[in-house]
Amino acid sequence: KVDGDRLWNSLMEMAKIGPGIAGGNNRQALTDEDGQGRRLFQSWAEDAGMVMSVDQMGNMFFRHEGTEPSLDPVYIGSHLDTQPTGGKYDGVLGVLAGLEVIRAIRDMGIRTRRPIVVTNWTNEEGTRFAPAMLASGVFAGVIDQDFAYGRKDAKGASFGDELTRIGWRGDEKPGDRKIHAMFEYHIEQGPILEAEGREIGVVTHGQGLRWIECTVTGKGQHTGSTPMRMRRNAGRGLAQLTELAHEIAMKHQPDAVGAIGHIDVYPNSRNIIAEKVVFTVDFRSHLLPVLLDMAQEFLHRAPDICAALGCEFDSQIVGQFDPPAFDPTLVGTVRRAAERLGYSHMDIVSGAGHDACWVNKVAPTVMIMCPCVDGLSHNEAEEISPEWAAAGADVLLHAVLETAEV
Amino acid sequence: KVDGDRLWNSLMEMAKIGPGIAGGNNRQALTDEDGQGRRLFQSWAEDAGMVMSVDQMGNMFFRHEGTEPSLDPVYIGSHLDTQPTGGKYDGVLGVLAGLEVIRAIRDMGIRTRRPIVVTNWTNEEGTRFAPAMLASGVFAGVIDQDFAYGRKDAKGASFGDELTRIGWRGDEKPGDRKIHAMFEYHIEQGPILEAEGREIGVVTHGQGLRWIECTVTGKGQHTGSTPMRMRRNAGRGLAQLTELAHEIAMKHQPDAVGAIGHIDVYPNSRNIIAEKVVFTVDFRSHLLPVLLDMAQEFLHRAPDICAALGCEFDSQIVGQFDPPAFDPTLVGTVRRAAERLGYSHMDIVSGAGHDACWVNKVAPTVMIMCPCVDGLSHNEAEEISPEWAAAGADVLLHAVLETAEV
Ligand SMILES: NC(=O)NCCC(=O)O
Ligand SMILES: NC(=O)NCCC(=O)O
Repeated sequence: KVDGDRLWNSLMEMAKIGPGIAGGNNRQALTDEDGQGRRLFQSWAEDAGMVMSVDQMGNMFFRHEGTEPSLDPVYIGSHLDTQPTGGKYDGVLGVLAGLEVIRAIRDMGIRTRRPIVVTNWTNEEGTRFAPAMLASGVFAGVIDQDFAYGRKDAKGASFGDELTRIGWRGDEKPGDRKIHAMFEYHIEQGPILEAEGREIGVVTHGQGLRWIECTVTGKGQHTGSTPMRMRRNAGRGLAQLTELAHEIAMKHQPDAVGAIGHIDVYPNSRNIIAEKVVFTVDFRSHLLPVLLDMAQEFLHRAPDICAALGCEFDSQIVGQFDPPAFDPTLVGTVRRAAERLGYSHMDIVSGAGHDACWVNKVAPTVMIMCPCVDGLSHNEAEEISPEWAAAGADVLLHAVLETAEV
Repeated sequence: KVDGDRLWNSLMEMAKIGPGIAGGNNRQALTDEDGQGRRLFQSWAEDAGMVMSVDQMGNMFFRHEGTEPSLDPVYIGSHLDTQPTGGKYDGVLGVLAGLEVIRAIRDMGIRTRRPIVVTNWTNEEGTRFAPAMLASGVFAGVIDQDFAYGRKDAKGASFGDELTRIGWRGDEKPGDRKIHAMFEYHIEQGPILEAEGREIGVVTHGQGLRWIECTVTGKGQHTGSTPMRMRRNAGRGLAQLTELAHEIAMKHQPDAVGAIGHIDVYPNSRNIIAEKVVFTVDFRSHLLPVLLDMAQEFLHRAPDICAALGCEFDSQIVGQFDPPAFDPTLVGTVRRAAERLGYSHMDIVSGAGHDACWVNKVAPTVMIMCPCVDGLSHNEAEEISPEWAAAGADVLLHAVLETAEV
């Protein structure tokens, strides 16, 4: 078993970097705080005898050598970046549990045939630079590196410039690695495991996603002196498309979800009718036909809704992946490890996107989940118990040892 | 008649300060650009022989002496501040036409018995610091000066601090002035004069206003892994209240208008369901019972709509004034001046709020309007013709001369 206290202490140490305003974290990708978090992780990993490589996307790889260095390594990875109002565990747990696996193996004097590599993937959250899972996407060859470098945050700073600025632009070509298997351990971010009273989620599939960035353009006019009949109010376009996205998701629920989280209004003055509203619809389903249906229905109906308001509708897909199915052999390995350790478990579908979803395209991949309180995530109040954290790390340890061949 | 070319050139000179991004202006209250605009106006007014006083709200008063200095002066005033995406004429025309009246009087060697004071009222637009017409409101005794000083912009800077920072906090106590009459000349900001083919609007009344700042609070949750049934989406509260405000205004149209121009979403991340949305509803009518009805219906229905979404509703009035009726004698003076000059004219209700609406509380006040293209205002594309600008300034000149007693 892992050292649950050591894992928890590392989580709490990391959470001191980029504190939020309500007990969580604001350590967004490629900020100074991200750089600080990376350096702390580096110092810990090097203390545990691992050797670092960094690729051109800022992905960090720490190698723990195997007795047969020529064999393809087993990977453990997740992300250290957070939402602007994020929790202390989303992503971080998977990285630091990877570190804990190595620390525990060393303590116990266990040697594996295959090397083990612990990874921090850059910009998983996608808040500062859309889409999410940007750097694992480049690694997996599904996102173009130049496109990624050109992604801009709300202030216009580019991913490439910011990566250089914080000093984490490495030399290695992204994707230039052989992976025998990859494990990602993550909090569920949903309510199912807690409701079912299970300690471990064995993740068999994930939801696919479409992020549709919409621009509704009306006319910026005086709110007081413009007659009602002359208005072209882009704010009403936002209102009706908010309800449309909800209606479409409700039609397919519980197999789908949909909402708008990001909205920018221009010029955003109390006495100017909204001239332009830019917002992103987030549709997800674990069923590809449902996902495609939702996006299609939205894109089909939105222009007419806006036209009826005298507004124009424009859209762009800024994030997309199809529902992944994880590697059946590794799924079995995780399930058996939970069984062997005596942890209650169930098969589960990941509601969120994860780096594992992209890596799954190029190597056998699987995820392990632990519950989180009230299913709450992407919120500073995100919480898990030390026991939950340790249970999943134990399963990770066992599954990795089996796969890396003791 | 005034010198229309000189007036137009002054408008174009002023528009160079705080240029917008689309041909208009961004010279918001108490920014560096506002300070620059004030200094340019000061230099012009002093060149025209006027003497400046500045009050504690930053209101600027330039006095042109009368032959009987002890008589109460006639005031001409409007504002130099603009919307973030404002036009070149909204407010500015009224201030620079006041200056042109003095320049013309001096050219013609005319002396009036009463002094004439040309005024720039601070923070009319209310975009940076709500409410609108803040400083004329303090002058008229309807807004408390400490309250005004404490108003904060979106970045948390206070009105009082910013006024000091740009160097325009004067010594004079606001309101400590006797006003014989006050004239405000302004673009219509609506489509009526142009549609009716009239050069001059004789403003008899104005619309009243209620600005209701609403806060809808839900829960910030993961957009992917939170089941639809568990959501408390504040964005849906915004959507339904946007439509409610519209529905209520449409019920009373054409006697009323209503919309939301200002929206802030928290935490505003693509994959976080909106936790909190803060937005301002702008309701207006020239009929007080209609205005009160609209605000009441909105405030009555909004909490239930939000509760049905699992959200809380909170509100605060951040701007309000009742429909003003301008001084009948001065209204007659303006109408006669237009008649005498041969300009086509009509009585009109002001759709927008103006400093004159507040000054009207403490002194006989009236407004003169000129058309603007397509009724478009609060937009960088706001446009008027030099002929329209000059016609209103001619009416202003004649009405002021009559009232200041040649
Ligand atoms: N796990 C997680 O929250 N990833 C961010 C991408 C997403 O929105 O699913
Ligand atoms: N004239 C004008 O646009 N004033 C700003 C206050 C308002 O919104 O009416």
